[in-house]
Amino acid sequence: MNEYLPGLAGVPATQSNISDIDGEKGLLSYRGYPIEQLTANSNFEETTLLLLDGCLPTTEVLADFDNKLRRNRRVQYHITDLMKTFPPSGHPMEMLQTAVSSLAMFYPSTVSGDASADDLEYIHNMSVKIIARMGTIVAMWQHIRHGYDPIEPRTDLTYAENFLYMFNGVEPDPLLAKILDVCLILHAEHTINASTFSVLVNGSTLASPYSVISAAIAALSGPLHGGANQKVLEMLEDIGSPDKADAYVEERLAKKEVIWGMGHREYKTKDPRATILEKMVDEFIEARGGAVNPLLETAKAVEKACDERLSHKGVYPNVDFYSGILYTEMGIPADQFTAIFAIARSAGWLAHWREQLDDNRIFRPTQVYTGKPPRDYVPLDQRK
Amino acid sequence: MNEYLPGLAGVPATQSNISDIDGEKGLLSYRGYPIEQLTANSNFEETTLLLLDGCLPTTEVLADFDNKLRRNRRVQYHITDLMKTFPPSGHPMEMLQTAVSSLAMFYPSTVSGDASADDLEYIHNMSVKIIARMGTIVAMWQHIRHGYDPIEPRTDLTYAENFLYMFNGVEPDPLLAKILDVCLILHAEHTINASTFSVLVNGSTLASPYSVISAAIAALSGPLHGGANQKVLEMLEDIGSPDKADAYVEERLAKKEVIWGMGHREYKTKDPRATILEKMVDEFIEARGGAVNPLLETAKAVEKACDERLSHKGVYPNVDFYSGILYTEMGIPADQFTAIFAIARSAGWLAHWREQLDDNRIFRPTQVYTGKPPRDYVPLDQRK
Repeated sequence: MNEYLPGLAGVPATQSNISDIDGEKGLLSYRGYPIEQLTANSNFEETTLLLLDGCLPTTEVLADFDNKLRRNRRVQYHITDLMKTFPPSGHPMEMLQTAVSSLAMFYPSTVSGDASADDLEYIHNMSVKIIARMGTIVAMWQHIRHGYDPIEPRTDLTYAENFLYMFNGVEPDPLLAKILDVCLILHAEHTINASTFSVLVNGSTLASPYSVISAAIAALSGPLHGGANQKVLEMLEDIGSPDKADAYVEERLAKKEVIWGMGHREYKTKDPRATILEKMVDEFIEARGGAVNPLLETAKAVEKACDERLSHKGVYPNVDFYSGILYTEMGIPADQFTAIFAIARSAGWLAHWREQLDDNRIFRPTQVYTGKPPRDYVPLDQRK
Repeated sequence: MNEYLPGLAGVPATQSNISDIDGEKGLLSYRGYPIEQLTANSNFEETTLLLLDGCLPTTEVLADFDNKLRRNRRVQYHITDLMKTFPPSGHPMEMLQTAVSSLAMFYPSTVSGDASADDLEYIHNMSVKIIARMGTIVAMWQHIRHGYDPIEPRTDLTYAENFLYMFNGVEPDPLLAKILDVCLILHAEHTINASTFSVLVNGSTLASPYSVISAAIAALSGPLHGGANQKVLEMLEDIGSPDKADAYVEERLAKKEVIWGMGHREYKTKDPRATILEKMVDEFIEARGGAVNPLLETAKAVEKACDERLSHKGVYPNVDFYSGILYTEMGIPADQFTAIFAIARSAGWLAHWREQLDDNRIFRPTQVYTGKPPRDYVPLDQRK
């Protein structure tokens, strides 16, 4: 008999061979490959295929996958028409959940869940289509919500380049495209958190993959899950300049308030993804000859102030600490940050969706009933 | 240390005082009140309030709630415009997931999750609005998908009456409206299944209630979860007439194939909801002087054939066995059945959403990692 643990904390809910975290050592690996090696050598397309298939692809397999990703970037104009009916104030995550859900109607699908070869090919094709369209939809919304027609995707660009092109309407800066590519790799997968768990639960009913990914976007939209990088950015803007970082951190800690972007439930050391991002930030500042957003200098001052006060407690910057500022440099507004997280995470979600279907059992946990014992109905006129 | 159990079968995932099932005795109760007493004495509106608040309301509280439900039936024409961009072939469940998700953009909301009095009132108001609009959206789609403008809701009708009025465009038959009301009560809540569990997981991130309910609709849309009453209807149409029921059942059992609508994971006896529905079927046949859909006679013949062969194994009709045929009598096509299930279940979902927020902890179970140990990245030109 299993014990009741709120939030299922520490309760194993699945067997998975997709990613692994060693929180003590600060290690994260996808399919066994350390995240540092993937960001140094791979790209988002290859890492996505690695997550989906379980192995690094050959030249031919990778080219075929990349080609499919590029060809599936376009969406029907019906979907543009649908998105034009959304209120311009609609939050990008709620927009994304709705638009992805609508794709289930435009592209009907059925999943047999019998793990046959046909099913596997189908699951793979659906995954490619969804991942390709996620970036398109997020970039489209940036134009549609401001009253402009979206920019058509291009097939001659990488995933990250095309996203920046569609988002900003200009040729993407190569260094920023490379940084975005690394950010996408870093956010692609992270074992079983609430949104990935939502994929397992919803996927286990054999619902359409669009329905399943739409539901995962719902989970990620919750302020307790996604959205921390937006908070970091707001905090840095609030601080204003590097010289005020020390006093700000001191005051927040005295009031026992959160410093956004610091600490992570899974890591006792610095989040390995933050280490990678911090290095990219330094390279970026150097490449630009220091002519960068002053928020970056403020961020570095906040990190230093926190390091002096918190590192002995095992509290270090997490992946959210630098990603928001880097997105700002790319011309991306803060309310779109979590949507970019969702684009990247769709790779991991669909890897988990496939893994769930491979040996599926519908989720039906039990409850500890704490309510009233059987009692008789009381007619309306006899109630007090 | 908890053991890994696929699908979390038998693993307690929450403490709940909303509903209880005694599978051995065939008992289902909402807030302690047996389902038989609720269907005999209550109505969907009162039962919904019972589920949300935990107690039977006074005359005043019930009148206020019912009034709110009626006033929130209308939706903005923006939502009608949005639904008109959906493909007419869109499945009602995918339509419903998308439309409910879109409401998050039209009616922005934030949940603090601090269980304060303000928050409780807010949660209650959101629940009323969502439950009121679920029926509206499902009925609207019936017209929009056929190219017609939807029918405006009325405030002088009960929930069940208004749904039938909006769906069919004529004054609802009182007996059928009463039957629908009972069906809504019977489907309103059923402890922690996949869709209700999805509410807990997604709700625990403090996502918008529209996002959370949209995600639950995704879970219910899966063929392993909702949709069995549609299968029952197709089976009955396939059998064709009562005299062929015996041979059909015999053949299916010989081939070890499923008889749709028979058996339920939770009940060792007849599903108590099926008993209630069967009685309603008999009353309905009598009221109509036998002039009813021949499928009803076929259903009774199938039940008899199954009773002779399966009841010693504890396999009896479940709630899906009769509900589909009754919906057919109401003029509702089979692909809308699960959407009606979703309308009813929104009451239970929102009761669980509120209960989750009352003592919230984000869901983050663990995984049993079965993948590769750390390994080095292999450059593309060195792969085999």
